Amino acid sequence: MWASGFALRVEWALKLKGIEYEYVNEDIPFNKSEELLRLNPVTKKIPVLVYNGKPLAESLVIIEYIDETWKEGYSIMPKDPYDRAQARFWAKFADDKCTMPLFHVFSTEGEAQQKAVEEAREVFKTLEKALEGKKFFGGDCINYLDLAIGWFAFWLPIIEETVSISMVDDENAPLLKAWFGNFLEVDVIKSILPPRDKTCEMSKMRREQLLSAE
Amino acid sequence: MWASGFALRVEWALKLKGIEYEYVNEDIPFNKSEELLRLNPVTKKIPVLVYNGKPLAESLVIIEYIDETWKEGYSIMPKDPYDRAQARFWAKFADDKCTMPLFHVFSTEGEAQQKAVEEAREVFKTLEKALEGKKFFGGDCINYLDLAIGWFAFWLPIIEETVSISMVDDENAPLLKAWFGNFLEVDVIKSILPPRDKTCEMSKMRREQLLSAE
Repeated sequence: MWASGFALRVEWALKLKGIEYEYVNEDIPFNKSEELLRLNPVTKKIPVLVYNGKPLAESLVIIEYIDETWKEGYSIMPKDPYDRAQARFWAKFADDKCTMPLFHVFSTEGEAQQKAVEEAREVFKTLEKALEGKKFFGGDCINYLDLAIGWFAFWLPIIEETVSISMVDDENAPLLKAWFGNFLEVDVIKSILPPRDKTCEMSKMRREQLLSAE
Repeated sequence: MWASGFALRVEWALKLKGIEYEYVNEDIPFNKSEELLRLNPVTKKIPVLVYNGKPLAESLVIIEYIDETWKEGYSIMPKDPYDRAQARFWAKFADDKCTMPLFHVFSTEGEAQQKAVEEAREVFKTLEKALEGKKFFGGDCINYLDLAIGWFAFWLPIIEETVSISMVDDENAPLLKAWFGNFLEVDVIKSILPPRDKTCEMSKMRREQLLSAE
């Protein structure tokens, strides 16, 4: 699905490795194809990578698989086992703790939204600890954790704009804010981003849908 | 914490590798030590592995770290990248989809509980697909996925007993049911299990606490 941050992770990883691929769009969440249900019957989610006829789902799992299968070229996972483990820890933290508050900020208003905003500010402030003393989460260059968290760099400012609330800014999370800019300036990343205007438009429409469905 | 399934994962992995370790109990969730908060300030959860003075949290992350750090001996991760990716996919499925319904079965009653029971039966039925044609999730021997899912083999029958409801049985998930027995018969696994009676007692007490807190 063209605007999905989880699909972006996989495309970025393929691009970093220089792997050619065919991109097939899915019309989620309302119009999933038979093909998707066949390829990922368990969670029915995108992205799915199909290689040698074998399907694989879950974006973070796919990124590791890409790095382990195409060993040549760009190293996505950190070389040192402890650094690798820390990167996995923070990627899990971002998925488990940051995504849900952000969705609540996006899908609610009033008091519920205010509570979610505070929670989001808190978890993003925590997340930036993994950036201390570094330009990227991976150090001088982007790696696994940058790809895992990368969709926030694109999506979070769009969500902030949609709801007119700031969460990651120079006051609350200056390192993360700076990383947003640095990450989106990396050539490979910049070359695969959804069109911003179209995404903003979709974001506003989706929020209205969610609010009216309450 | 002596009855934690997530701590068990790590102990099993250490034991499979033949690594000597010092076990420090934590009185969670109500009485976390200063040491725990210092070692894992981000999620404040157990287990935490400390090796060479460096702490690491998140049980699945720790298992992979153990396998990558002590390369000799028992192989915890599957050797083939695709098998490894599939194991990670299913471990994530179990954590994301099976744990919560099970907790709801444990912590509610009446209609809410009935709904959770149906959901739990469904996800465990799905989970056993990863077992088709195999004795263990790892094939002839246990590996990463067995360790990840292993706590269900011990805890699920105790929860079933606590709430007097069957979820994984010969009718709903016969392969998983058989695996429960096979897994708990593995020497290393059997050698590190919490005392069943004490766990049952705690389980019943905890359920009463949760129900009366509603």
